[in-house]
Amino acid sequence: MSEAQNQTIPSTLDEKQPSKKALKKEQKKAEKAVKKEQRQAQIQAQQVAAEKDDCSRDKYGVFPMIQSTEKPDRVLHQIKRLGAEQAEQNVWIRGRLHTSRTVGKQCFFIIRQQQFTLQALLFVGDGVSKQMLKFVAKFDNDYTYDVLFYCSITKESIIDVAGVLKKVDVKIESCSQQDVELHVEQVWVVSAASPRLPLLIEDAMRPADDEELATVNLDTRLDNRILDLRTATTQSIYRIEAGVCQLFRETLNNEGFVEIHTPKIISAASEGGANVFEVTYFKGSAYLAQSPQLYKQMAIAGDFDKVYTVGAVFRAEDSNTHRHLTEFVGLDLEMAFQYHYHEVIKVIGDMFVNIFKGLQTSKYCNVSITASTVVFRYADDVATVFKQYPNEPFKFLEPSLILTFKEGVEMLRENGVEMEDDEDLSTPNEKLLGRLVKAKYDTDFYILDKFPLAVRPFYTMPDPHNSKWSNSYDMFMRGEEILSGAQRVHDPDFLTERAKHHGIDIEKIKSYIDAFRFGAPPHAGGGIGLERVTMLYLGLGNVRLTSMFPRDPKRLTP
Amino acid sequence: MSEAQNQTIPSTLDEKQPSKKALKKEQKKAEKAVKKEQRQAQIQAQQVAAEKDDCSRDKYGVFPMIQSTEKPDRVLHQIKRLGAEQAEQNVWIRGRLHTSRTVGKQCFFIIRQQQFTLQALLFVGDGVSKQMLKFVAKFDNDYTYDVLFYCSITKESIIDVAGVLKKVDVKIESCSQQDVELHVEQVWVVSAASPRLPLLIEDAMRPADDEELATVNLDTRLDNRILDLRTATTQSIYRIEAGVCQLFRETLNNEGFVEIHTPKIISAASEGGANVFEVTYFKGSAYLAQSPQLYKQMAIAGDFDKVYTVGAVFRAEDSNTHRHLTEFVGLDLEMAFQYHYHEVIKVIGDMFVNIFKGLQTSKYCNVSITASTVVFRYADDVATVFKQYPNEPFKFLEPSLILTFKEGVEMLRENGVEMEDDEDLSTPNEKLLGRLVKAKYDTDFYILDKFPLAVRPFYTMPDPHNSKWSNSYDMFMRGEEILSGAQRVHDPDFLTERAKHHGIDIEKIKSYIDAFRFGAPPHAGGGIGLERVTMLYLGLGNVRLTSMFPRDPKRLTP
Repeated sequence: MSEAQNQTIPSTLDEKQPSKKALKKEQKKAEKAVKKEQRQAQIQAQQVAAEKDDCSRDKYGVFPMIQSTEKPDRVLHQIKRLGAEQAEQNVWIRGRLHTSRTVGKQCFFIIRQQQFTLQALLFVGDGVSKQMLKFVAKFDNDYTYDVLFYCSITKESIIDVAGVLKKVDVKIESCSQQDVELHVEQVWVVSAASPRLPLLIEDAMRPADDEELATVNLDTRLDNRILDLRTATTQSIYRIEAGVCQLFRETLNNEGFVEIHTPKIISAASEGGANVFEVTYFKGSAYLAQSPQLYKQMAIAGDFDKVYTVGAVFRAEDSNTHRHLTEFVGLDLEMAFQYHYHEVIKVIGDMFVNIFKGLQTSKYCNVSITASTVVFRYADDVATVFKQYPNEPFKFLEPSLILTFKEGVEMLRENGVEMEDDEDLSTPNEKLLGRLVKAKYDTDFYILDKFPLAVRPFYTMPDPHNSKWSNSYDMFMRGEEILSGAQRVHDPDFLTERAKHHGIDIEKIKSYIDAFRFGAPPHAGGGIGLERVTMLYLGLGNVRLTSMFPRDPKRLTP
Repeated sequence: MSEAQNQTIPSTLDEKQPSKKALKKEQKKAEKAVKKEQRQAQIQAQQVAAEKDDCSRDKYGVFPMIQSTEKPDRVLHQIKRLGAEQAEQNVWIRGRLHTSRTVGKQCFFIIRQQQFTLQALLFVGDGVSKQMLKFVAKFDNDYTYDVLFYCSITKESIIDVAGVLKKVDVKIESCSQQDVELHVEQVWVVSAASPRLPLLIEDAMRPADDEELATVNLDTRLDNRILDLRTATTQSIYRIEAGVCQLFRETLNNEGFVEIHTPKIISAASEGGANVFEVTYFKGSAYLAQSPQLYKQMAIAGDFDKVYTVGAVFRAEDSNTHRHLTEFVGLDLEMAFQYHYHEVIKVIGDMFVNIFKGLQTSKYCNVSITASTVVFRYADDVATVFKQYPNEPFKFLEPSLILTFKEGVEMLRENGVEMEDDEDLSTPNEKLLGRLVKAKYDTDFYILDKFPLAVRPFYTMPDPHNSKWSNSYDMFMRGEEILSGAQRVHDPDFLTERAKHHGIDIEKIKSYIDAFRFGAPPHAGGGIGLERVTMLYLGLGNVRLTSMFPRDPKRLTP
């Protein structure tokens, strides 16, 4: 079931004979390898010659590949925990060589662990040789230098550094740890980075509108996601996204929800053919689920009362916009209610408030706190993101603002928009309404209730007093929809009637309707796009910044 | 992004003209509808005639469909909270009519909420008419009765019942609430179940080896999953599964792991063609991910240090066994370590111990406990499952037992198995070893370390001292593998060498190898099948019992 099965993959990869082109490539490679060997021999010869008078020859170099040979007692320190209190301590640190700069006999370099950085200082003298200095930073590691001349540590390499922490008088503005620097005694390469980096971490962390210095565009970031993931901003974005997910589950667990898992591969039976990806399923075919809705509803009819599910959702829409993905993470919930679907709106609204509050303040894991417990401080992460992508902090009300669709339309009309009562909101109108609501109520989150029945799916419960409206709602962040939901029709006869009204062939949705034939409680729910929530909370302009490996009609890699 | 997009589905469902067969069906339906109307008219007439002298005519009946018309103040009580302390209280309860039995002028019926049941008692007399009694249970609701004669409440219907709780002298063995019963004053149908149920909840809860009474086979259960989900056993299984998932995340969050989401749709580039489902992707094609491994490793190379992901994993294997699914939920983790992959084995081993302990004892949500907090008692749920599927409680050691592959092979040889040193474990040998380990060490969970290099994938790190072995491990529950993992080769040159050794075309795995070119820490991880963990913890014989809507080569519905 798990990884062992993957063993079969490699064996299938080499069935074809190599092409001429491949052979040529191989030849070129071989030539390159020879050159490389020659260079290395040359370097080694130089080193041997130099070693004679190298007083620090056992203080630097390249470690053999870590193959789990030994379990040394050495403690590797976390940069984020180093401050003035640790001054005068001898420490070992493993991190990346972020940047380095040589000034005469001194070399300043920055060691990076995730978003945390520490200044290190190496100066030729007692125990530190010229050769060692050259090894750490012979050049400024500019990747335009020819690889031939490279023999010092490349940027982004992982290194083990030993030294003494020293308190500094003037705060080090360029590092996260501003009160101490490391006076280096040993430097060893654990894993060397290629000298030619497709992007530089410093460049990738600059605001896009920086007019003087280089920045990195979205496609370059995504094509080289491994490097982009290392920037403080991207690190923070995905910690925040994990936070949204965790807060979603935590809030609902506390409300008695049960987590379920719904199938992604579905038969054709209950869904149509539009916007659905087709899968070859043994000798037949199947589809990828566009939504876990039917399964959530089946769990409700199966007496789970309140359920949620977090998982991949697929949309085969050829939409190339800032907010559409072909695969995204759905946070879906569904719950039985007693008398009124507003019970469900309240749960969802309160859940969002809980997520926003959790992201706004520092958040502690409060389950069995131990020494190894990492404290997630989303507030810091949010601040980090705003540094690169400046934005207003996200505002919300408690309890959440609920407006009716009618009230929304009136606000739009007062501002010159011409539209019918039961016309759906266009994207520009949606955004305009967001701005109007923000101006009037000072909130970036609100709920729009009672959408026109005509613009909602057939399974939406009509309003009991006026069937022009429906018991359905959307929720918005910074003027964009992030949740759509409704009370569902739970009566099979009425559901059949509604489907017929929409001109749907009843036979094709039979299994859906049958799900309600054995008694079903009134229920409502909704689906949320995780990446959109993260994007809009942070006010980012593109959902690809909040999907670690995004999929859209034009992107399937990495 | 979310549900609103589904609106497009219905419109595509009715493009074809109805066939002759469909027309005939429609006609039959129409005839049936007429008959139904006639029956209802007859029933109504009888009711009108009867109502004249019906002293309880406003105490029972069918509620209109709950359409969110009003928000009454009425409190609906939870059965699980009703005990002797609530005696003499007037309560309203919404639940399912589980069973009913009429004895003369008395009717006993059981109201069910999930796995909790309460006995209710209706007797003709003060305020309760004969007609009301008949309405609740005219017949014993046997579904073999012709629907024509049906006019009382069907089993599985959702009803609102009002009455007074009374303490009982003799414990009610047949109900979860044994100290009280409800003396009924009102009964209303909220949602009626069809009188013909494809399976009965009582039957579905019997142990499979019951020789006297009806039981339900697996396919019938799965075909009618909505009903099967309502049994106490199935309710408990999925609460336990949610618990496994929650404990997995909780433990890893506390260890500083970050949750990530990896794409399920992948390009062909980095994976082979065997056992992979193909997807039509716009004008091209793509595949469904067999494992999130590459993406976990990219996150590690991207400095996330420790990551996990929970999501769908797809295997296009035509394996029709008790433990293979074509789609399952993967609990995957990957972490950078300092010196030795045993650091990772320890984290994973401790995580399993934490899961087992969490399931064994009562578990409380310990985040902001409020009145609405539901206390998950997995121990009770486990007991419920064992009632239907008797089994030994799951045993484990703390810390976990770790054996080397070599030791495992020796144990097998001592028991008559003939096998080579570096031969992989066959399924029967795996199970036998599980039994031997249980007998010797009294544990159902153990870790087998240092598998032969030859039986592991190319990216597995060889043992540094003897390349016959590797830095890889499997973990077992009740003698079946539930996790496979290893230290991965993090050096691109060595990875290339290993791939070549396996005869893999390097060009085809270029993007995988390139992921390690910018410096990568030593790392290890593993993948776990959620459904297998739940199945084996409970000692269930089939993984389809722990997958809510299982997918296998022969099943794509519901």
